[in-house]
Amino acid sequence: MSYQLHYWPSIQGRGEFIRLALEAAGAPYVDVARGDAASGQGLPALFHYLQDESVARPPFACPVLVHGQQVIGQTAAILLYLGPRLKLVGASVADRLWTHQIQLTIVDALNEAHNTHHPVGAGLYYDDQKAEAARAATEFRTERIPKYLGWLETVLARNPKGDQHLVGARLSYADLSLFQLVAGLRYAFPQATQRVLQTTPRALALHERVAQQPRVAAYLRSDRRIPFNEDGIFRHYPELDS
Amino acid sequence: MSYQLHYWPSIQGRGEFIRLALEAAGAPYVDVARGDAASGQGLPALFHYLQDESVARPPFACPVLVHGQQVIGQTAAILLYLGPRLKLVGASVADRLWTHQIQLTIVDALNEAHNTHHPVGAGLYYDDQKAEAARAATEFRTERIPKYLGWLETVLARNPKGDQHLVGARLSYADLSLFQLVAGLRYAFPQATQRVLQTTPRALALHERVAQQPRVAAYLRSDRRIPFNEDGIFRHYPELDS
Repeated sequence: MSYQLHYWPSIQGRGEFIRLALEAAGAPYVDVARGDAASGQGLPALFHYLQDESVARPPFACPVLVHGQQVIGQTAAILLYLGPRLKLVGASVADRLWTHQIQLTIVDALNEAHNTHHPVGAGLYYDDQKAEAARAATEFRTERIPKYLGWLETVLARNPKGDQHLVGARLSYADLSLFQLVAGLRYAFPQATQRVLQTTPRALALHERVAQQPRVAAYLRSDRRIPFNEDGIFRHYPELDS
Repeated sequence: MSYQLHYWPSIQGRGEFIRLALEAAGAPYVDVARGDAASGQGLPALFHYLQDESVARPPFACPVLVHGQQVIGQTAAILLYLGPRLKLVGASVADRLWTHQIQLTIVDALNEAHNTHHPVGAGLYYDDQKAEAARAATEFRTERIPKYLGWLETVLARNPKGDQHLVGARLSYADLSLFQLVAGLRYAFPQATQRVLQTTPRALALHERVAQQPRVAAYLRSDRRIPFNEDGIFRHYPELDS
């Protein structure tokens, strides 16, 4: 049964963590909101799950994954569901919980990255909060990027199965999410991220290995991969980097 | 086997969601950091899990739950683990995932509440970001509190098993977390929250029912419940409410 992903059609955003998992596993899926509204896809299908009163368990926001009768919101919860089905997580309870814990921490980093350009509120434009954003970005660059990437480096260094993967000895969705976090930080804060990555060689190497995984590499070259842009979570505003 | 909770000893913070689950279930646990360092408890025990190189799977931050060999960070992941063990979640995969999804959304609300007094960065004092905080709090009060409490109201209204609980027909950790979210919002933003709660009668009623659950009520009266204060996530700065 094909997976239906519902996410904003013009940005990578949170949906990208789901796209990467589905793509890396070679799973059949439809990126519904990028389809044609005339054929039952597009944004109306997405808004159905967010707004229609017939949805008994309404997600707060997208991404939303629909799989048969199951409707799931929250990026980390979707990956918790997909992990075993896509063989992107270990078999033990402990491995699954640890992989989820890493994912939740990457989501925290993502929230803080978003906060650099919207520290006052997501409902206002960046132009209406540039002064606050400049301060928030300085704090994020100097304190938080080193802390998050440093923690991922430590996780790799301490993995008893070696430093090629975050959990165990094979690819998990946490590895894919590390790839995406590093890609986003490099796009948004190229100078600051480059400096930090020089101190986290294992995280950098994993990022590069994931990019070369055949299915991921094919995806990144395809037009299914939406380019980074200034509507997403990772935005390159040169005034926020240094 | 007793649960060990490691969390900052002087605030409710994120640890409170774990304390409430353990208390509501009547589970044996030790709030380790509030114990005596001379007897192996206190903050040194907490810092062991955050900093010691011998920890193979180091949490990024606390709360940390230790249960036998299992060491778990991230509030929502801890509740995912505890839910079935404390009988605070339904038995089906779908119910567990939905309860987790609600918890993750409550954590998002919590992050945004924290952002109202620390929009620039958690590493700076509130006094160093009061101007930014004033703008962020206005946005949070007028847009986000209604959106989050309104969503929880919708979840209750659409629950096929009735509007007494968020999931199914019995108490889950999501209900406990709704209680704590409402308690925190009332403390931090009493005027704004009171206005919103008049439009979300089911959420308000569930908050009040949870407070009257015998074990929860006994906990709230005890000195194990740390009072709200201006070091936690929910802080009452009168200038941020209206």
